[in-house]
Amino acid sequence: MKDRIYGGIETGGTKFVCGVGTAPDNIVKTQFATTSPDESIGKAIDFFKNNSDQEQLIAIGIASFGPVDLDKNSPTYGYITTTPKDSWSNISIVEKIRSQLSVPVVIDTDVNGAALGEQVWGAARGLDTFIYLTVGTGIGGGGIVNGGLMHGLLHPEMGHIRVPHDWEKDPYRGCCPFHGDCLEGLASGKAMELRWGQSPENLPAEHPAWELEAGYLASAINNFIYTISPQRIIVGGGLIKNPDLMPAVRQKVLESLNGYLHSEAITRDIDHYIVAPELGDLAGVIGALELAKRIRQGI
Amino acid sequence: MKDRIYGGIETGGTKFVCGVGTAPDNIVKTQFATTSPDESIGKAIDFFKNNSDQEQLIAIGIASFGPVDLDKNSPTYGYITTTPKDSWSNISIVEKIRSQLSVPVVIDTDVNGAALGEQVWGAARGLDTFIYLTVGTGIGGGGIVNGGLMHGLLHPEMGHIRVPHDWEKDPYRGCCPFHGDCLEGLASGKAMELRWGQSPENLPAEHPAWELEAGYLASAINNFIYTISPQRIIVGGGLIKNPDLMPAVRQKVLESLNGYLHSEAITRDIDHYIVAPELGDLAGVIGALELAKRIRQGI
Repeated sequence: MKDRIYGGIETGGTKFVCGVGTAPDNIVKTQFATTSPDESIGKAIDFFKNNSDQEQLIAIGIASFGPVDLDKNSPTYGYITTTPKDSWSNISIVEKIRSQLSVPVVIDTDVNGAALGEQVWGAARGLDTFIYLTVGTGIGGGGIVNGGLMHGLLHPEMGHIRVPHDWEKDPYRGCCPFHGDCLEGLASGKAMELRWGQSPENLPAEHPAWELEAGYLASAINNFIYTISPQRIIVGGGLIKNPDLMPAVRQKVLESLNGYLHSEAITRDIDHYIVAPELGDLAGVIGALELAKRIRQGI
Repeated sequence: MKDRIYGGIETGGTKFVCGVGTAPDNIVKTQFATTSPDESIGKAIDFFKNNSDQEQLIAIGIASFGPVDLDKNSPTYGYITTTPKDSWSNISIVEKIRSQLSVPVVIDTDVNGAALGEQVWGAARGLDTFIYLTVGTGIGGGGIVNGGLMHGLLHPEMGHIRVPHDWEKDPYRGCCPFHGDCLEGLASGKAMELRWGQSPENLPAEHPAWELEAGYLASAINNFIYTISPQRIIVGGGLIKNPDLMPAVRQKVLESLNGYLHSEAITRDIDHYIVAPELGDLAGVIGALELAKRIRQGI
């Protein structure tokens, strides 16, 4: 009899990542651009059909961009609800996959999934209270507090906090269709592209865009520190691939906290306090796979 | 043999509240102004000596203004650390009380204490993820997430988040000695008094101070909702005694969220989502007493 395996899907704003297996070093994976719901979900289903057989595949976890309805008693459980992403609103991603693959399917946010992946296999091993931020096309945040994934009433939507916006220094009005100049509206990859007229990866290191970006991210991280008191902050996503960004963010976080918090974990060891995901771009899909494992563990 | 009783102390910026007993309807209490550490702590010790005998009094809980060192492995466990309050920095409040009363003493923040009191006896019964804010001389926030008091690396210091500050509308630079115009620097009772030259309780209902205040609090609550996704937000403290403030805050929170979150608990029932503490000014001391009970329960 073949070993049990699990499936994970990270549905991101720009791409889907699918994996099937048991662990980071024992996984078959693929990725493709996020297009329409039918096309993207169809490709994911085909991947699982082609890379597992039904007696092996125990469950599938989805780490999705949000907002997602995570209330298992809700008639719209597993739906993506009010996303700004056209055509993805009110999509029942869980049901579409369950009905095609006939296995249990669980969903959480992309950032909660990535947080779980990092806790099991990466930068958050041994921690019970930490957050995971992603800074890419959009901005999101989730995490684990007191050992449990952050849910509460719905789930965190950390990208939509408001941060100070100096209109003289940055007259850009923000691109969030709901909030204008919330964090995502000011500091997402989409905001950078709209503000500067070119894709962030084409902005040179000395461009003022990066100082501004570091300031917004530091301001948000300052707020998350004071609100949650995380033991670590993991920052993933496309924008942090600029190697100068994280050091600039760390420096500005220290300036913003200004010595108020007496913790050497922050004041002396900021390089290990605000970190990149150890699983890199695979944090989400590995976390989704861990979500799937938990279905049978009843957690 | 007499029944077991517990002691609770809420150490606030303006007053100490002490109680001894078992429950909100079975408690002897007192309160007095917060002055110097020796005088205030001395009065608390005298109160417990006069209202209990040693075989009855099992433990004492303290709900303290912060920052407080809550790390039981730290040499400064139970110390108030970098408070802006003169003469209270580096005060070992736990040890001073334990050494005089010879009972176990536990400490948490005033707002975590109040949150616990509200969970056991008040507006948060049955909830596992909610926050408690106090808006008085200072601003603080704590709460319970996934069933546990919010600690993490240190403990939340929600009063020190940064919120948008429109310098044209409000040229006041803020009074936080660490951060200038953080939330506490802009919206605490102290900030109102310094900005307007009079104590908040003397500012009439039509004074523009209140609209500004509601805006800052709503901005902060917007951020806490997006960061933690609480099932409820309890707001205590002296400033909310203005009966117009909470309705104005609720309205501005709805405007700020702008329909992004699909939850009727917020969109249809905001009056029961952002609420005053049911225990009123006693939330802190009752919560402190519940902290004391937990010592023997090993939680």
